[in-house]
Amino acid sequence: MSRMSDQQEEICAEAAFDGSGLKAVLVNATLKPPGQDSHTDTLLEVVAEIFSRSKVAVDRLRLSGHLLAPGVYPDMTDHGWERDDWPKISDRVLEADILVLGTPIWLGEKSSLAAAFIEKLYAHSGQTNDKGQYRFYGKVGGCVVTGNEDGIKAVASSCLYAMSHVGYTIPPQADCGWIGEAGPGPSYGDEKEDGSGRVGFDNVFTQRNTTFMAFNLMHMAKMLKDNGGIPAIGNVRTEWDDGSKPGWPNPEYRIDD
Amino acid sequence: MSRMSDQQEEICAEAAFDGSGLKAVLVNATLKPPGQDSHTDTLLEVVAEIFSRSKVAVDRLRLSGHLLAPGVYPDMTDHGWERDDWPKISDRVLEADILVLGTPIWLGEKSSLAAAFIEKLYAHSGQTNDKGQYRFYGKVGGCVVTGNEDGIKAVASSCLYAMSHVGYTIPPQADCGWIGEAGPGPSYGDEKEDGSGRVGFDNVFTQRNTTFMAFNLMHMAKMLKDNGGIPAIGNVRTEWDDGSKPGWPNPEYRIDD
Amino acid sequence: MSRMSDQQEEICAEAAFDGSGLKAVLVNATLKPPGQDSHTDTLLEVVAEIFSRSKVAVDRLRLSGHLLAPGVYPDMTDHGWERDDWPKISDRVLEADILVLGTPIWLGEKSSLAAAFIEKLYAHSGQTNDKGQYRFYGKVGGCVVTGNEDGIKAVASSCLYAMSHVGYTIPPQADCGWIGEAGPGPSYGDEKEDGSGRVGFDNVFTQRNTTFMAFNLMHMAKMLKDNGGIPAIGNVRTEWDDGSKPGWPNPEYRIDD
Amino acid sequence: MSRMSDQQEEICAEAAFDGSGLKAVLVNATLKPPGQDSHTDTLLEVVAEIFSRSKVAVDRLRLSGHLLAPGVYPDMTDHGWERDDWPKISDRVLEADILVLGTPIWLGEKSSLAAAFIEKLYAHSGQTNDKGQYRFYGKVGGCVVTGNEDGIKAVASSCLYAMSHVGYTIPPQADCGWIGEAGPGPSYGDEKEDGSGRVGFDNVFTQRNTTFMAFNLMHMAKMLKDNGGIPAIGNVRTEWDDGSKPGWPNPEYRIDD
Repeated sequence: MSRMSDQQEEICAEAAFDGSGLKAVLVNATLKPPGQDSHTDTLLEVVAEIFSRSKVAVDRLRLSGHLLAPGVYPDMTDHGWERDDWPKISDRVLEADILVLGTPIWLGEKSSLAAAFIEKLYAHSGQTNDKGQYRFYGKVGGCVVTGNEDGIKAVASSCLYAMSHVGYTIPPQADCGWIGEAGPGPSYGDEKEDGSGRVGFDNVFTQRNTTFMAFNLMHMAKMLKDNGGIPAIGNVRTEWDDGSKPGWPNPEYRIDD
Repeated sequence: MSRMSDQQEEICAEAAFDGSGLKAVLVNATLKPPGQDSHTDTLLEVVAEIFSRSKVAVDRLRLSGHLLAPGVYPDMTDHGWERDDWPKISDRVLEADILVLGTPIWLGEKSSLAAAFIEKLYAHSGQTNDKGQYRFYGKVGGCVVTGNEDGIKAVASSCLYAMSHVGYTIPPQADCGWIGEAGPGPSYGDEKEDGSGRVGFDNVFTQRNTTFMAFNLMHMAKMLKDNGGIPAIGNVRTEWDDGSKPGWPNPEYRIDD
Repeated sequence: MSRMSDQQEEICAEAAFDGSGLKAVLVNATLKPPGQDSHTDTLLEVVAEIFSRSKVAVDRLRLSGHLLAPGVYPDMTDHGWERDDWPKISDRVLEADILVLGTPIWLGEKSSLAAAFIEKLYAHSGQTNDKGQYRFYGKVGGCVVTGNEDGIKAVASSCLYAMSHVGYTIPPQADCGWIGEAGPGPSYGDEKEDGSGRVGFDNVFTQRNTTFMAFNLMHMAKMLKDNGGIPAIGNVRTEWDDGSKPGWPNPEYRIDD
Repeated sequence: MSRMSDQQEEICAEAAFDGSGLKAVLVNATLKPPGQDSHTDTLLEVVAEIFSRSKVAVDRLRLSGHLLAPGVYPDMTDHGWERDDWPKISDRVLEADILVLGTPIWLGEKSSLAAAFIEKLYAHSGQTNDKGQYRFYGKVGGCVVTGNEDGIKAVASSCLYAMSHVGYTIPPQADCGWIGEAGPGPSYGDEKEDGSGRVGFDNVFTQRNTTFMAFNLMHMAKMLKDNGGIPAIGNVRTEWDDGSKPGWPNPEYRIDD
């Protein structure tokens, strides 16, 4: 069964967007263990389908199935932890042109797994691409946020800023989500109490924003790819002796060696 | 006297970036009245010079010289206020390809004038361009933040998210700034106590980030212009009956009539 | 007509709280001009009634009726501005035992007038009480937030932190508010489309939190008053030569002279 | 060797605060594994010493030594995870009168372990004390934040709001920390490059705020204890049929069964 509405089907068909060659990774930072239903997954599904119809390769990653060792180095087994699954999965993120971070809202904020994931992006922020720019230059980022009330904008602001700060380009309206009225209530994709369908599926505003985000991510990723990324002029790290050092604890000031 | 360091001079000369046809507006949300020195202005000066050397037209706007009537409509004299200077200056923002918002930090946040300015951007968010996309599509945004301690990232996150949400594209590392150590101390551009120069002028990290931001804004603005903006596919507002209405109080759901 | 629900009436009657001698100021940071209906006012009304039934003196202040000159000094006419209404109204805040800041949400954040108000609280943060503690010690603060979707917690976090940082005590659950489902929709107190009453008035969760906040503010204000404020031990500013100076631009490091 | 400055020693001696009967838990959310030096620990040390001199019982907990299973239930082994250390350590937090959360700053935010800890506080927010108030009523909270630049206020705002929202009382100036100038540099407690001592130890502003926080936490905890907590009037959960249910996924709306 498609998660997309008729209108989304139509828009995708009409667009006939050709995203061949583009890769997207959809990261789900739900706190639920692998196998359990996730409301965030249900909305990410729409994004995945829009991408697939547009020939963008889609990789989906649920963080809770992996142990990300605390710390802001690419491999924390070099820094005192016995186990770190991040090195095994980091390439899935580092090689994607498009990153979509999906997260639930708890107490008005992104999940602790979303926070851990951002620490891992940060861990790579001392690395550079072959033009001497920061590693994530030329890639684009967006986010999907679900909760049963309150917090889409605060969470999106935090996630998108982190991506931008490490080098991602953020296209217009790169966030989408669903929340309900203040107080107890269902979450995205739950059966409605009156049996008339799934919560949020018919929220035109949520579905519109999800569509806008998905297409803007594809447009911008394609434009960047077609133009060879961001020109390496005025933004090359190696031209600056800015006090950064190999091995520095803070990745922003670390030179990868 | 140039505000740029020797290295910035060199990078601009080497880059020989041709931004002819691009317009940038640099908005200063300092709380200081017109005519008084502003630390934020001093750092915006560097951005202005990089733009000018690169043939980008620069317009500078200090908000404190204008009365922005409270409210999220483009002209608040239609909504109960006697005076509103925004309609007189809004075109300077609406016509620019690049927006840089400069703001001081007070109590860890952007200034109230920066908040008022964002409310004005929001006021126009119900408007669309001639492709039926949101008004600010195709434009790029960044921000400059100064304080005597603490808050660049929180302030940048708030400002960049707002821009992104209304339609701006945010290039990589679109924020820069200067802050000092926790506790009382000088601000950006103040004379150092030992007389050895101006505070922050020799902070390589601040100057590097300022340069990266300025160039990334120009690269992205040019790329968007050369590509005719963001394709109007999958992101056209008028294709959706999303509950938006003419005159709606919340601009996000308002259709301009 | 009372804005309180039957349950709130009952709780107030049963409580028979005697708050004689306590003063509360309810500040409304709506962007609407004086005289226009404000959704935030409608929820502040409930707080006002709970206070009144409990013999707490209530003062209500709508910021949009006054011109707060930009800047973080108690009187900005000393610092370059021609007019500043703050000195005329600041005593209403400085003398109250309880501060409730009511604000709408725009683009996920508190209003620019709320931001301006916090800058004014900050302006007084260099002053001390007669025990040598910061000016706002012994007072309590809370906040009321309304929007048509998304942002209560982010806004409350910002407002309550600012109050705490300048010296207010924050009792448990000191925030309350109402928001609706993602997308266009009515705001607190609007007529429901089906004519069955006012939006949010029957939201038990909103009304419960509003009641909890109001009572916790009264309990804590009374406890602090009965105990002579916070003991002046270990928290006396004048015992520290912390680099603060008379006239310092940043109020946190300013000694009032 | 004492981590306290001479002035802190003096203030503690003069105060002769008798906090017998009060318990404090100092939680460190550093990403470093147990055994590795933590800058946050070094500043928490000062708080611990002030508490100890004042006869407050001090318990210290480094989160990285325990596996907190993702999720917002008090014991996640009931909800699909094989291992969850939280139930083994939760009593140390639930029984303390004073909670101090220490966290480093990464990319301008609290650590992912601090986020996980707040999710665990939230997990208990559906529980009530024997007066029918939320579980954390009558307790007080503060936070300690260290980084090599930028973010104390944003991080403190997030941590203190979460505590307040679940029932903690936040005394005045309940946050403290140390950060350095923008750009690469040492962190709290590192040897200074010129060998003249430890970074931040002689920052009077940091040490003053740490002292204020420690004493305000003790004053407020004692006042609450002496007054039998917050009176159970107007803030009793069980008086409201607010839609909360046993087992609800969102702890705020969950009734503990």
